[in-house]
Order: sequence, then C-alpha cells, then structure tokens
Amino acid sequence: MKTLAQAEKRGRPDIVHFAMLEALGSPLNKEKLLQFYVHTLNDYVIRVNPETRLPRNYNRFVSLVEQLFEFGKVPPKSSETPLLALRQQTLTHLMTEIQPSYTLGLSRLGKPATLEASVSRLATEKKPAVFLGGFPSGHFSEATYKLVNEVVHIDRETLETWTVTSRLIYEFERALSLPEKRL
Amino acid sequence: MKTLAQAEKRGRPDIVHFAMLEALGSPLNKEKLLQFYVHTLNDYVIRVNPETRLPRNYNRFVSLVEQLFEFGKVPPKSSETPLLALRQQTLTHLMTEIQPSYTLGLSRLGKPATLEASVSRLATEKKPAVFLGGFPSGHFSEATYKLVNEVVHIDRETLETWTVTSRLIYEFERALSLPEKRL
Repeated sequence: MKTLAQAEKRGRPDIVHFAMLEALGSPLNKEKLLQFYVHTLNDYVIRVNPETRLPRNYNRFVSLVEQLFEFGKVPPKSSETPLLALRQQTLTHLMTEIQPSYTLGLSRLGKPATLEASVSRLATEKKPAVFLGGFPSGHFSEATYKLVNEVVHIDRETLETWTVTSRLIYEFERALSLPEKRL
Repeated sequence: MKTLAQAEKRGRPDIVHFAMLEALGSPLNKEKLLQFYVHTLNDYVIRVNPETRLPRNYNRFVSLVEQLFEFGKVPPKSSETPLLALRQQTLTHLMTEIQPSYTLGLSRLGKPATLEASVSRLATEKKPAVFLGGFPSGHFSEATYKLVNEVVHIDRETLETWTVTSRLIYEFERALSLPEKRL
C-alpha cells in the first residue's frame, strides 16, 4: 500500500471551509481589515476576496474549490476581482509579496501565551500576519517556521482551527474596540 | 403553491452543525462547564452529551440526525448515556426542568450591549442560560421572549450563529480566567 506524503496534513477541506466562514463573517472582515489566504501542501495559494459570500453548504463549497482548481479563479469568466483566485506559490513567496511587519504562528509547539496577550502585541503592528495550521494533525514545516517572528500555543489541548480563527479575530476586534464601535 | 409555516426558520441544519462544533470543541466544554441543547421549531429538544465527538463532515452529521429522529437517541442501542437524545418538549418545559438562575437572549431586536458586558453579568450567576437563534432569519417567538430576563444585540449587523456561539463561549471562559488556567 502506498500512502501520500504528509498524509496527516491532507484530506480535510472542511477545516478550511469552517475557518473561512468564521473569517469572512466576522465584523473585522466586514470592516475590510482582514485578508485571508489559504496555502496548500502542494504550494498553491488561494486569495480570498473579503467580499466573497462563501457557500454554507459543504458540498457546494467543495464544488467551488474544484471549479477554482480547474479554472484558476471563481467565477471563471468574470472580468472583475474574482471571489477566489489560485496561484502556484510557496508560502515564502507569498510572504515576500505581502511583507508583514510581524508574523505570529499558532502551534502546539510554541510557548504558552494567551490569545489576548499575543493579539495585543499584533494590534500595535502596522501589518501583522498570523499563521494557523488548517490541517488535521502535524505541525508547521521548517520553511514555515522561518517565516514567523514568534510561535505560541494558547491552550493545553489542541483546539480546532475554526475555533482558533474565530477567537483570534475576535481578540483582534477587541483590541481595536470594534465591539463597542459597532453597537 | 404551499409554503411551510415559518419557512424562514427552517432548512439550515448546517447552522446547528457549526454551532455545535464550536460549542463541543471549546475549552469550556472540555472543562464540563457547558450543556448544549437544540430546540426545534416543532418542539423537539436534542440533549447533547458534552462528550459527543460530532462528525466534522456535514453529510455524516445529517445522517446522525436522521438516525436520532428515527430511534430517539444516538447510538440507538447503547445502554450508556447517549451522545444525542431526543424528546418532544417545548422550550418552556425544558426551562422549567433546567431552572436557570438567569437567561440571556441574543437577538437583533435586543438592546445594544457588548458580549463582554453581557457575559460578565452571566458569569456571576449560579446557573446562567443563553438563547441563540439557530435559524437562518426571523426572530424569537413570543413564548421564547417570556423565558428570558434580558435580550441584547452585540453588533449592528446580524452575525452567524456559529460565530456568536464561539465568541460567547470564549467570553465566558475569559470571565472565568480559563485561558490563563489552561496554558
């Protein structure tokens, strides 16, 4: 029997689906203060237009991603900014393009820190970026580790990616006093 | 053409699926400090065992719920506490059974308040309960309104149920200093 390399990091598009739903539906995103990217194991980067209204239904999400990999963008024929756009690109290359001022990684292997403390640091930065593992198990690759300034873990157990996405974004909103401002 | 009564409150089991995933995967639940119920439009109550590991896959979740409605519990033949258990029960009856000391409702029709302020009140209560609408649109029924002590809205736009579930639970954890304790 053959097994795909890094099998533990494959086969769970539902993780990305839920995490994207949490990100795109957040007040932070509605304020146009969030840019979400998906980097895949085989070095594709999906750019997510903040205005994308993602299908809630999982099967429709999978169809959309299939269409994305077939045509390189979704919707395939639009001349405007696509909702999702695909490029063959390493994470290192993407970061060179984005040029974040500070990059935080969240991983079980990092040092212990609350999300609140970690995010309060991020919120003082001009262009902060955060890496979250969107895979079922396994850790960041060595190449990924080289791209982050700091790696923290926020709970003694592994939390689901969508849960961390939601809390991270919420803490960031709190640091900007968005909850009060948006009442 | 006929339309089902209260059609706007039907047909989106994905909302409950995501919200349950956020609830069951939370540190608050891992600490056994959370009890999650689903009350349906036609007065069924699903009791969710905090130890339930819910299918991540939507299609498997739907199968599980179908099994639940066929057999009244899941797994159907276990003699131990089931993962999910179904009863025909109004929300009023459920609340009489649970006897919460304070009940908060989250709804667009409530008065504006941040989640942080609302939850800090809840955290002082012996047995607080929170109502979240798990339907695509529409509001709490009159009967439901009678069961809550206070109704608040936490953002000027409608947020997804799973997002509110996640933030609500996280704020409650913060009020208990769980993030620090669980590092």
